[in-house]
Amino acid sequence: MDYGMELKEKKQLIEDALDSYLPAEDNYPVRVHQAMRYSIFAGGKRIRPVLMILSAELFTDEINKVLPAACSMEMIHTYSLIHDDLPAMDDDTYRRGRLTCHKAFGEATAILAGDALLTMAFEILSENSSACKQNKYSESYGDDVRPETKLQVINELAKAAGVNGMIGGQVVDLESEGKVLEKEVIDYINKNKTGKLIETSIRLGVLLGGGEKDDLANLTRYGMILGEAFQLVDDLLDVVGDSTKMGKKSGMDAEKEKATYIAIMGLEKTKAKRDSLYEQAVEQLVPYGQSASVLHGITNFIFYRDF
Amino acid sequence: MDYGMELKEKKQLIEDALDSYLPAEDNYPVRVHQAMRYSIFAGGKRIRPVLMILSAELFTDEINKVLPAACSMEMIHTYSLIHDDLPAMDDDTYRRGRLTCHKAFGEATAILAGDALLTMAFEILSENSSACKQNKYSESYGDDVRPETKLQVINELAKAAGVNGMIGGQVVDLESEGKVLEKEVIDYINKNKTGKLIETSIRLGVLLGGGEKDDLANLTRYGMILGEAFQLVDDLLDVVGDSTKMGKKSGMDAEKEKATYIAIMGLEKTKAKRDSLYEQAVEQLVPYGQSASVLHGITNFIFYRDF
Repeated sequence: MDYGMELKEKKQLIEDALDSYLPAEDNYPVRVHQAMRYSIFAGGKRIRPVLMILSAELFTDEINKVLPAACSMEMIHTYSLIHDDLPAMDDDTYRRGRLTCHKAFGEATAILAGDALLTMAFEILSENSSACKQNKYSESYGDDVRPETKLQVINELAKAAGVNGMIGGQVVDLESEGKVLEKEVIDYINKNKTGKLIETSIRLGVLLGGGEKDDLANLTRYGMILGEAFQLVDDLLDVVGDSTKMGKKSGMDAEKEKATYIAIMGLEKTKAKRDSLYEQAVEQLVPYGQSASVLHGITNFIFYRDF
Repeated sequence: MDYGMELKEKKQLIEDALDSYLPAEDNYPVRVHQAMRYSIFAGGKRIRPVLMILSAELFTDEINKVLPAACSMEMIHTYSLIHDDLPAMDDDTYRRGRLTCHKAFGEATAILAGDALLTMAFEILSENSSACKQNKYSESYGDDVRPETKLQVINELAKAAGVNGMIGGQVVDLESEGKVLEKEVIDYINKNKTGKLIETSIRLGVLLGGGEKDDLANLTRYGMILGEAFQLVDDLLDVVGDSTKMGKKSGMDAEKEKATYIAIMGLEKTKAKRDSLYEQAVEQLVPYGQSASVLHGITNFIFYRDF
């Protein structure tokens, strides 16, 4: 199954759409626009928007319907990385082999570039059709997606990214450094810090693609499992990953005394948990048979990637 | 005209609505919820939501329609203050006589509390009626406001707060410290950093209140003038204001070599500009006669306040 090629195509689609949504680098004020583009085009794997598009494609071939939300999701993910890397947070110098945003542009610009990306995510999702005409991809978004659906997309994204979602997870993660944690707390961090955006990427794909209620339930479950696994695999990579491929040093979690499953369950049990989550995830895709083959492919990648 | 009493009532309405929208302080994770409430209830004048409600009331007496957007506006204003106060930005220790958020809760929590308020603003604006039922004020918002109007509100707010609005103004302001500026640059800063949210408060009030196209044009002009004046009056207060009443030291702009009109035009010419803007602002209210009397009152306050 050559899903690699299809993933590559999807990724290119997203790169192009992000490029057309983001204001040009020479827009005034220049520096913050440069910083926004620097971080958006920093070699991200685009896993969230790819998942959203693939989930939508189970039900529609009109990718235009889902591209604005896919780009918004990536903008929110990117803003969260910019802010997480700040000196007051994780204090990281490199990400994906390049200087972090605040190292390249200064802290003030990095904070504001993050704020701007978060804000722009909601601007894009609320455009009406005429405003979208400027954009080669979203032309039909305004016309084809019901306003009620757009509002639901905005609401789900805001909740997933908010204080009872991603931000909550980041808060608890920061507060937990250097502490011995209960498994429940690690579950909370993983579910919220990373899981919520992954799960919501799938949900928004189904919603915008026009899946039925049952599909939404099935695939939300798939998204939850994937979300739970995502951070767990990231933690595994920090221990066993290839730092050249990852573009960051391995072993950083232990150095920073980060709360991970590995710290409390050990490496082998963490691997076993990953394998069990994998089984559960692919089971959710069974009803979609061959149409879910690319989704199946990216699921394999997420669980067994080495970078 | 006893508009003071009416303003007080409006302010209380907003305080109550904010209280009901914000998650309780003992919500998990506690610290970030405390920080959000600390900054939201820090004694702000609530000028933006009051302006929004008063603008809506020119056309409707259903305040419920406008309360969610009024609270969102205040959340966005508050997030911008939290981030502006950070060490990497203005590095302020006090605001309104209390410690700034990062001084009280630490930098990481302050950044995340700001992010959370910005995100929550869009969550509130996109709630559907059933989700709003939890909230005693917004019960009718979902039912009475068309989805298309909600989307327009979200879009205008995101644009006003974004990189071509408030954030752009803040970027240029930060980049300008210690530099001699052209009047055009100061205009850009004032128009965007402060003006856009003020102007948009008025616009959203008219939109949600159900004003006609002409009203929107008239009152947008009023909002633009008010927005331009707002920062100018703030700059004047920094020179001639009462630091006890303001809850912060005066003379800080000169100390930090902030770009202000006073720095390039001098005190007298700046006062003359304020007076001229005042004349233009109240002129826009003439068509609304007695119904705009409270709006007239708050206009007087904004132009001639001493704190």
